[in-house]
Amino acid sequence: MSDSNSLDGLVEALRRLPGVGVKSASRMAYHLLQHDRDGAKLLSRALEQATSTVRHCERCNTFTEAPVCGLCLDARRDATKLCVVETPADQAALERTGAFRGYYFVLMGKLSPLDGIGPRELGVSRLFERALDGQVSEVILATNFTAEGEATAHVIGEALRQRGLTVTRLARGVPAGSELEYVDLGTIAHALVDRR
Amino acid sequence: MSDSNSLDGLVEALRRLPGVGVKSASRMAYHLLQHDRDGAKLLSRALEQATSTVRHCERCNTFTEAPVCGLCLDARRDATKLCVVETPADQAALERTGAFRGYYFVLMGKLSPLDGIGPRELGVSRLFERALDGQVSEVILATNFTAEGEATAHVIGEALRQRGLTVTRLARGVPAGSELEYVDLGTIAHALVDRR
Ligand SMILES: [Zn+2]
Ligand SMILES: [Zn+2]
Repeated sequence: MSDSNSLDGLVEALRRLPGVGVKSASRMAYHLLQHDRDGAKLLSRALEQATSTVRHCERCNTFTEAPVCGLCLDARRDATKLCVVETPADQAALERTGAFRGYYFVLMGKLSPLDGIGPRELGVSRLFERALDGQVSEVILATNFTAEGEATAHVIGEALRQRGLTVTRLARGVPAGSELEYVDLGTIAHALVDRR
Repeated sequence: MSDSNSLDGLVEALRRLPGVGVKSASRMAYHLLQHDRDGAKLLSRALEQATSTVRHCERCNTFTEAPVCGLCLDARRDATKLCVVETPADQAALERTGAFRGYYFVLMGKLSPLDGIGPRELGVSRLFERALDGQVSEVILATNFTAEGEATAHVIGEALRQRGLTVTRLARGVPAGSELEYVDLGTIAHALVDRR
């Protein structure tokens, strides 16, 4: 511990960031206080601002500051197709391909029984509500091709098929075990076209 | 970019942290907003608090909230010995060995000509002032055993010798190329005893 409670508190708070241990947190705190106090103040305000303004889109569940996000409000998209992704980063990767013109639903996670995240915790009932709006005819499952992403796709897919919807999965052009966010755009675009 | 300016601003601000790229920053922002808003608020307040209260000790230059830090105020230490370190983490590593009972001076960096950090930018004149208080007789250079740490020790050591002080360096028990913060305590303690 240092000579300053505020410094110790900052190190402790930085450890709340994912992937940051006590050594990294100390280095971050030293760096900010020694070389970038403006950055520290900027980050403080950005955190305050984001926690007070960012909420979830009522239709697709992604982060937004409005009740409904811009993409969901875009009436030129294809209302018969709904693409399910794990995170906003995955959605962004799909959007960059330009190969999909329907709407999205962002799970903001995946089924992970070992972490206690089942269908209820993931809030899949909101997805079902969205998918059963009477306009959607095909749901494209674009969860990651990891064990948990595949399990999530399986569970959601079965439930939606039972409710009469066509359910497809991104084609296996995406290498197994990989995460969409890190896959090149061409591969994703190809997998979209070949969805099964 | 997302549907939220606040979210984009948070990602941008998180990139001010050392070692954090755009992918890590996005993951951190998503994690805080999705799973740990309390953590985000805590971090916001900790940054605000630290930037407004943490300053440098007038004697040893370490981070503190008082004009002079607790260690510098401890009159039971040996005023004839001054140990020069790069960072508070290095000082903490030395303190944990229990093998040094003098005072410290924390450079808060190292000479790094390629980054434009020369003796003036590092503020070595404050070290010279501290070392020439009339009580200090030996200065122990405990900068890291990296190329830049060695160069820093060399430059500071030469200047202090010319001013009539005994200058020693931690013994080579510390493996070359390593950083003190990551060295086991026994090695550091041994190197302190064998200083040359
Ligand atoms: Zn939306
Ligand atoms: Zn001090």
